[in-house]
Amino acid sequence: MRVCTGKLKQMVAARQLIVFGCIQDSRSGAAVEAYHDSGYDALIIDREHTALGDETIAEQLRLARALDFPCTVRVAEDCYHELNRTLDQAPDGIFVPRIRTREQVERLVRTVKYPPLEVRGLAGSTCPAGKYVGWGSVSEQIETTNRNVVLGIQIETAEALADLDGVLSVPGIDVAVIGPDDLSLGMGLPGRLDSPQYHAAVEQVIAACERHGVLPGIAGGDPATVCHWVQRGMRVIWYASDICLMWMAAQKQLRDLRDVLAEAGWEGHS
Amino acid sequence: MRVCTGKLKQMVAARQLIVFGCIQDSRSGAAVEAYHDSGYDALIIDREHTALGDETIAEQLRLARALDFPCTVRVAEDCYHELNRTLDQAPDGIFVPRIRTREQVERLVRTVKYPPLEVRGLAGSTCPAGKYVGWGSVSEQIETTNRNVVLGIQIETAEALADLDGVLSVPGIDVAVIGPDDLSLGMGLPGRLDSPQYHAAVEQVIAACERHGVLPGIAGGDPATVCHWVQRGMRVIWYASDICLMWMAAQKQLRDLRDVLAEAGWEGHS
Amino acid sequence: MRVCTGKLKQMVAARQLIVFGCIQDSRSGAAVEAYHDSGYDALIIDREHTALGDETIAEQLRLARALDFPCTVRVAEDCYHELNRTLDQAPDGIFVPRIRTREQVERLVRTVKYPPLEVRGLAGSTCPAGKYVGWGSVSEQIETTNRNVVLGIQIETAEALADLDGVLSVPGIDVAVIGPDDLSLGMGLPGRLDSPQYHAAVEQVIAACERHGVLPGIAGGDPATVCHWVQRGMRVIWYASDICLMWMAAQKQLRDLRDVLAEAGWEGHS
Amino acid sequence: MRVCTGKLKQMVAARQLIVFGCIQDSRSGAAVEAYHDSGYDALIIDREHTALGDETIAEQLRLARALDFPCTVRVAEDCYHELNRTLDQAPDGIFVPRIRTREQVERLVRTVKYPPLEVRGLAGSTCPAGKYVGWGSVSEQIETTNRNVVLGIQIETAEALADLDGVLSVPGIDVAVIGPDDLSLGMGLPGRLDSPQYHAAVEQVIAACERHGVLPGIAGGDPATVCHWVQRGMRVIWYASDICLMWMAAQKQLRDLRDVLAEAGWEGHS
Amino acid sequence: MRVCTGKLKQMVAARQLIVFGCIQDSRSGAAVEAYHDSGYDALIIDREHTALGDETIAEQLRLARALDFPCTVRVAEDCYHELNRTLDQAPDGIFVPRIRTREQVERLVRTVKYPPLEVRGLAGSTCPAGKYVGWGSVSEQIETTNRNVVLGIQIETAEALADLDGVLSVPGIDVAVIGPDDLSLGMGLPGRLDSPQYHAAVEQVIAACERHGVLPGIAGGDPATVCHWVQRGMRVIWYASDICLMWMAAQKQLRDLRDVLAEAGWEGHS
Amino acid sequence: MRVCTGKLKQMVAARQLIVFGCIQDSRSGAAVEAYHDSGYDALIIDREHTALGDETIAEQLRLARALDFPCTVRVAEDCYHELNRTLDQAPDGIFVPRIRTREQVERLVRTVKYPPLEVRGLAGSTCPAGKYVGWGSVSEQIETTNRNVVLGIQIETAEALADLDGVLSVPGIDVAVIGPDDLSLGMGLPGRLDSPQYHAAVEQVIAACERHGVLPGIAGGDPATVCHWVQRGMRVIWYASDICLMWMAAQKQLRDLRDVLAEAGWEGHS
Repeated sequence: MRVCTGKLKQMVAARQLIVFGCIQDSRSGAAVEAYHDSGYDALIIDREHTALGDETIAEQLRLARALDFPCTVRVAEDCYHELNRTLDQAPDGIFVPRIRTREQVERLVRTVKYPPLEVRGLAGSTCPAGKYVGWGSVSEQIETTNRNVVLGIQIETAEALADLDGVLSVPGIDVAVIGPDDLSLGMGLPGRLDSPQYHAAVEQVIAACERHGVLPGIAGGDPATVCHWVQRGMRVIWYASDICLMWMAAQKQLRDLRDVLAEAGWEGHS
Repeated sequence: MRVCTGKLKQMVAARQLIVFGCIQDSRSGAAVEAYHDSGYDALIIDREHTALGDETIAEQLRLARALDFPCTVRVAEDCYHELNRTLDQAPDGIFVPRIRTREQVERLVRTVKYPPLEVRGLAGSTCPAGKYVGWGSVSEQIETTNRNVVLGIQIETAEALADLDGVLSVPGIDVAVIGPDDLSLGMGLPGRLDSPQYHAAVEQVIAACERHGVLPGIAGGDPATVCHWVQRGMRVIWYASDICLMWMAAQKQLRDLRDVLAEAGWEGHS
Repeated sequence: MRVCTGKLKQMVAARQLIVFGCIQDSRSGAAVEAYHDSGYDALIIDREHTALGDETIAEQLRLARALDFPCTVRVAEDCYHELNRTLDQAPDGIFVPRIRTREQVERLVRTVKYPPLEVRGLAGSTCPAGKYVGWGSVSEQIETTNRNVVLGIQIETAEALADLDGVLSVPGIDVAVIGPDDLSLGMGLPGRLDSPQYHAAVEQVIAACERHGVLPGIAGGDPATVCHWVQRGMRVIWYASDICLMWMAAQKQLRDLRDVLAEAGWEGHS
Repeated sequence: MRVCTGKLKQMVAARQLIVFGCIQDSRSGAAVEAYHDSGYDALIIDREHTALGDETIAEQLRLARALDFPCTVRVAEDCYHELNRTLDQAPDGIFVPRIRTREQVERLVRTVKYPPLEVRGLAGSTCPAGKYVGWGSVSEQIETTNRNVVLGIQIETAEALADLDGVLSVPGIDVAVIGPDDLSLGMGLPGRLDSPQYHAAVEQVIAACERHGVLPGIAGGDPATVCHWVQRGMRVIWYASDICLMWMAAQKQLRDLRDVLAEAGWEGHS
Repeated sequence: MRVCTGKLKQMVAARQLIVFGCIQDSRSGAAVEAYHDSGYDALIIDREHTALGDETIAEQLRLARALDFPCTVRVAEDCYHELNRTLDQAPDGIFVPRIRTREQVERLVRTVKYPPLEVRGLAGSTCPAGKYVGWGSVSEQIETTNRNVVLGIQIETAEALADLDGVLSVPGIDVAVIGPDDLSLGMGLPGRLDSPQYHAAVEQVIAACERHGVLPGIAGGDPATVCHWVQRGMRVIWYASDICLMWMAAQKQLRDLRDVLAEAGWEGHS
Repeated sequence: MRVCTGKLKQMVAARQLIVFGCIQDSRSGAAVEAYHDSGYDALIIDREHTALGDETIAEQLRLARALDFPCTVRVAEDCYHELNRTLDQAPDGIFVPRIRTREQVERLVRTVKYPPLEVRGLAGSTCPAGKYVGWGSVSEQIETTNRNVVLGIQIETAEALADLDGVLSVPGIDVAVIGPDDLSLGMGLPGRLDSPQYHAAVEQVIAACERHGVLPGIAGGDPATVCHWVQRGMRVIWYASDICLMWMAAQKQLRDLRDVLAEAGWEGHS
C-alpha cells in the first residue's frame, strides 16, 4: 500500500504553484473525484469549520491516495488527538489554523514528528500510516514519514503577524497559508481585503516565508485576486470549496434561466 | 406536524412553471438549503440513478418539509416497496421513470392511492405519512393524501410514445416528464436532441398532456433549450443536479484561474 | 455463534402471549435495550413503513440476539430480495404484510424455506444466517433454520378476509397478525375499529387461525383493547412503537408541567 | 439562509420561561420534530454525555433552524475545537458544563466571540455560520453573531458554587443552568436533592444570577419539582430527554397492559 | 473520470485465471485495499447475502476504480432496480445469483444493455456510469458500456442444471459461476461436495460453458479444491470473504497462542 | 440494564491471563462477535490510531455488553472529553496511551473517578453509564462505577520508563500495558524488540507493576513472543487486530493458492 510517497513534498520543494480544492460538506467521494478529474493539484479536507465525521474523512483520504492525488487535512486545533488521529489516516500533509506563537509552532512540530526527531506515537500497523501490515521496518516508516508529510500552518492572527520571523523559522514548517478574513479581523479591519494595511501584511508574510524557506499561500476564490498574489509570490492557493461551488452554481444556474426567459418575454417565473 | 399540505399540488393545478433542483450525491442537508435559498420551486431527490440511502433521503425530505419547500422523489422502479416506503416518508410527490404501457400506469395509480380509491397500505402513525402520532382521523388522512400527493411519470420509452393517449389519460396522473436522453435512445437517435424527429416527439407529448390535463415537463440544464420548451408549453423543469453543478463549477473555477494567469503572462501552471 | 435457537418458535408452539416492541425510527441500539430491559417478549423491526437502512437493521438484530431477545422483521413486501437479505441477517422470524391470496402465501413459503422443502438460497457462511464460519453441516443448518424461523403474515385486506381458510391453511405459517387500520380500510370502514362488522371480522380471523393451528395476533397500543382481544384469543400483540412512545411521552411530559404550573397559579407559559 | 436570528436571545432577554427538550440518543430528525410539534420552546442536543456524531448533530441543528425552533448544543468541554466546530454549525446557543472558575469563564467568552470582542475564528462562508455563501459583510456577520448567540454555562461544581459572583459576573454569559446530580455530588450530598443544603445552594444560584443579569435554569423532569423552581425564579428548564422518554414510556406501556390483564383475571403474562 | 475501461472484460476474453476477493461485511475501504494490495485480480461486493448499504457499496466501487482494481457486484436478485441502481455506480461487471431459466437470462440481458441492444435506462450524467459530467457522446457511452461491462450469472439451481445449453447460449453472458452449496442443495445432496454426482454436474457446467464461449467459475476457499477445478477448466474463482478471513484468522490466532502456551507448560488459559 | 458488573475488574484482581482482541477498522458488530465466539477474554476498541466514529464505538460497546464480553476502549488522549464521553458509554475499562509523568496519572485518576474520590461528571440517566433510566441511587452508581471500571495506562515513553515507581504507584491504576514499538522508539532503538536493552526495560516494567499491585501487559501478535512474556509475568495481552487479521489472512490465502497451483504445475497465475 502506497502512503507518504512524497509527491506533495516534492511539489513544495520545487516551489510549484499548488491549487487546492477543499471539501467542507461532501460525504461521498464524488467531490474528491471532481477535483482530481478537473486538474486541481491537491486536496484539502477541512475539519476546522465543518461537521465532517472521522469515518468520512478517512474514506476521502483513502480515495485520494488511490488516485495518487495529494491530500491534506486542516485540523480543528493543534491538540494531540486532532493531530495524531488525523496523521494516522496517512494524509500527505496537515494544516494547522490560528497559529499565534513560536512556542506553539515548536510544540506542534514536536507532536507531529516521530522520534528521534520528536514525540509522535507510532502505529506500527493497523491504520493507513502503518500500511495496515507494517512498513519494511520501523526505521523506514519513521524516516519516510518524517521526511514526506507536509506540515502547514496558517498565519491569521495579530500575534503571529507580530512575530513572523519567530513563527516561520521553526524547523519543520513547510507551508504557511494566510486566512484573509481572520487576518483582516485580527488587524481590526474586518473583511477589508483591499486596504493598504492588509496588502502590506500579506507582503510581509511572503517576504518572511522567503527568508525562512517556507512556501507561502493564501485562501481565495476570485481568479484575479489569486493571480495578483501568485505574481507576488504565493504558491499555495486554497481555491475552491465543494459546497460553495455547488451553492453559487445553483444560484447562477437559476439566474441564467430567468434572464433567458425574461429576454424571451416570458413572464411566468420570479 | 405539517405533511401533504398540497402546496405542490396547487402549483400543478395552477399550471405554474415549476423549476426543480435535484439531489443525486449529497448526503447532508446543505443541498436542500442551497436550492431553497436560491429560489428553486421544488426539490427532487433521485433514487433511480443514485446510491442515496433510505435514511439519507428521509432526512432530506424532512428538512425540505420543514422549509415548506415542495419535495419529491424519483423512485427507481414502480414496485410496491419502492413506492410505499418512499411515500411513507411523506414527500409532496413522486416520479416514476420508464413508463411503457397504460396498464402499468393503471397499476401504479392503484398502488399509490389509499382505499377506497385503490390499495396503498396505511401507516396509521409511526412515520411522517402518519404524522407519527396519527391524523385527526383515518378518513382525513386518506382524503388529504389521495388529493395532495402529486403523481408524476416519465415519458422516455418508444412504447409510451406510441400510446401517449392511453398512458396519459389514466386518472390520477398529474405530471409527465420527458427524459431526453432515454427518449432519444428509445427512438433510435441516441443523444440527437436537435433532430426534427425528437422535437416532433416532444411536441406530441406536450399536446397529449394538454388533451388529458397532465402538466408536461422535461429535464435539461441549458437555459436556452429550457426556455424554448417553456415557450412551447413545458411547465415542469428538472433543471439542476447537485453533483453536476459542483463538478462543472470546479472545472470552470480552475479554467478561469488558468485563463487569468495565462493572460497575465504567468506560466507556472497547466 | 448462536442463531435460530428456536426460542421464539417455542413461545409460538406453547401458544404464549407474546408482547412485541417495535422499532420504526431508532438508529442506535438503545431502543432494543429499552424493550428488552422493560420485559417485552420480543422485538419487531419494521421495514414496511420506515426508512431504516439495511446496516441499521442488521446491527439491531445482532444486538437482540446477543441479549437472547427474540427478534423479527416486518419486510416491506414479499419479493425475494426483501425476504432473503433479511433472513440472512438471522432474525428469529419475519412478518409479511398485506397478504391477499393463498397462492401468494404458497409462494412466500417456497421462498423462505431451504430445499428440500423449498428454494431459499443458502449462505453457507459469510453472514449471521451462516454463522459467518458455517454450521456444523449444511444439513444441520437447513433443518434447524427451516424448523426454527417463525413465519408470520398479516391479515389486512378484503381478499384475505374472503379466503381465510385458504390463506391460513398453507403449511409453514406460524402466526397471523391483523393490521386494524388496513383491515378496516379494506372493509370500507376506515378507522371504525368499534363497528360490529370489524369486530366480527377479527373474530373470524381468530377462529380460522384456531382451525389451522396458526397463532393469531393484532396490533394495538391501548391496554383495554388489547386485553379484550387477548381474552378473545389473540396471542401476538404488536404493542409499542419507539417513535410513538417518545413522541406521545414528549407531549404528555409538557402537558403535565403546564397543568402543574396552571394549578399553582403561574401564568408564564402556554 | 436564516441563521442567528436572535429568537432565543430575545426569549432570554424577555426572561421568558424556556422549556427545553433534549436529544441524547436519536440519530434521525424525528425527535426534533417531536419536541417542536409538542410545543417545547427550544432544543438542546447533548454532546457531553452522549455518542452523537458530528454529522448527526449538524443535521439536527439544520432541521431545527428550518423549523424556526431555537436550537442549542451542550458541548463536552470548553476546548477550542469543541466550541468552534459546534458554533460553525450555527446553533442559537451553546451550553458549557462543569464550570469551575471565573478565569475559565473569561477564557470561554474569549473563545466564542469574534474579534474585536474576542478571538473566535471566522468561517467567511462554507458552513452554516457563514451562510455557505457569506453574509452581507464580515462586519454584519460579526456583530449579529456576537449579539445573538446565547452563551450558557452550568453551575454544578463546588468551586463554582464558592465563587458565584466571580463566575456569573463575567460579561457575555446569558444563562446559568444547575446540574442537580453533579451539584449534589460536588456538595458531598450525592443525589440528595431534597436536603436543605442543596435547596439553599440552588437559591444562592438564583440570587446570584439575578444580581448579574443572568437567566437561571435547572435540569429536571418531575413537573412538581420544576414548578417549585419556576416559582422560585428559574426560567430555563432542561425538561425531557428523548431516550429517557422512550424508555420510561416503554416500561409504563407494558405495566399498563399487565395491570389491565391482571384486573381482568387473565394470568398468562408476567 | 475513468469508468468501464474494459480491463475485466479483457481478462475474461483472454480466459485468464481471475481470483476474486469478496466483501460481505466491511464498511470501510480497507478491505478493498487489502485485496488489491495482496494481489487479488478482482473484487466482488456481495449484496445477495449481506446487509451492506447502497452508500457503502458505491464508495467501495469508487475506491476500487481509483486503484484500477476490477470491481463487480453480486446483486440480490435480477429485478430492474437492483440491476440498474448497481450498474449506475459503474462496476466493471455484475453477477446475478440463482438463475433458473433461459427466459430469465434473456430478460436479464435485455435489462442491463442499453438500446439499441436492449432497454437499460441511461444516466447521461449525475452518476459514475455517466462520468458525472457526461461522456464524449451518448453513442460512445452506449457502445463502450455495452461492450465492457461483464455480465455474470450463477449456476446453482436444479432447473438451470437441466437446461445448461439453453441458459448459457444466451448472447451477452460472459461468465457463469457455480455456487457449490446451493447447487448441491438443488441436487438433493446438501453440502456433499465430494459426491460423484456433484462432480459430474460441475464438469457438465464447464463443458457447456466451453460450448458457448462463457468463462466458467466456482466459489471456494480451499486451495486444493480450487486447484483441482482450475485444472479442470475453471477460470473465475470466488476465493475469499472479508469477514470469514477475519473470523477464521481470529480463531487460529488464539489457537496458536494456546498451543504455544500449552507446549511451554503454562496452564493459565483455556 | 447490566453495566459495570465488574467482570473485567475481577479478572484483573485474580491476575488472570487476559487476551484481548482489538477493533481498529470494523464498523459492524461482526468483529465483536468474532472475538467473543473465538474465545478471546476481552475486547479493546482503539480510538488512538483509528478513524472509528463515536456512534460506531458506542454500538460495539453495547453489543459486547449484551454478550457479557468485557469491553474496553483505548482513548486517543487523556483530555476530559475523550475520557468522559467514552466512559459514559459504559465500557468495562479504558486505556490511556503515552503516559509520561506521575502528575499526568494523578490528573487522569481525578478525571475518571466520580466524587467524593474525584471529579468525573455524572450522567444520572440518558446514557449507558446511567442505565438510561438511572441506577437504584446516585450512591450506588458512584460506588459501583468507581470500583468496577478498570483503568489502564500505557508505558511507552522514555519519561515513564524513567519514573516507573512514580507512575505506577498512583492509587487507582489497575493495568499497565507496554507499547513495544513506541517504547523502543522512546529508548532510541526503533523496532529493535530483540535488543537486551528493550528486554531489560520490559522486565523493569513487570517488576515495578508487581511492586505496586498493577497488572502488567504488552501488545504483540506473535505467539512465541507472547508466550515468553506471559512466562515472565505479563497478564494482559493485546493480541489481535481486526484489520491486520483480515489483511494478513487475505495475503496468506492467495499465497496458499499460488503454492498449490505451482506445485500442480499450473502456470497461469502470478
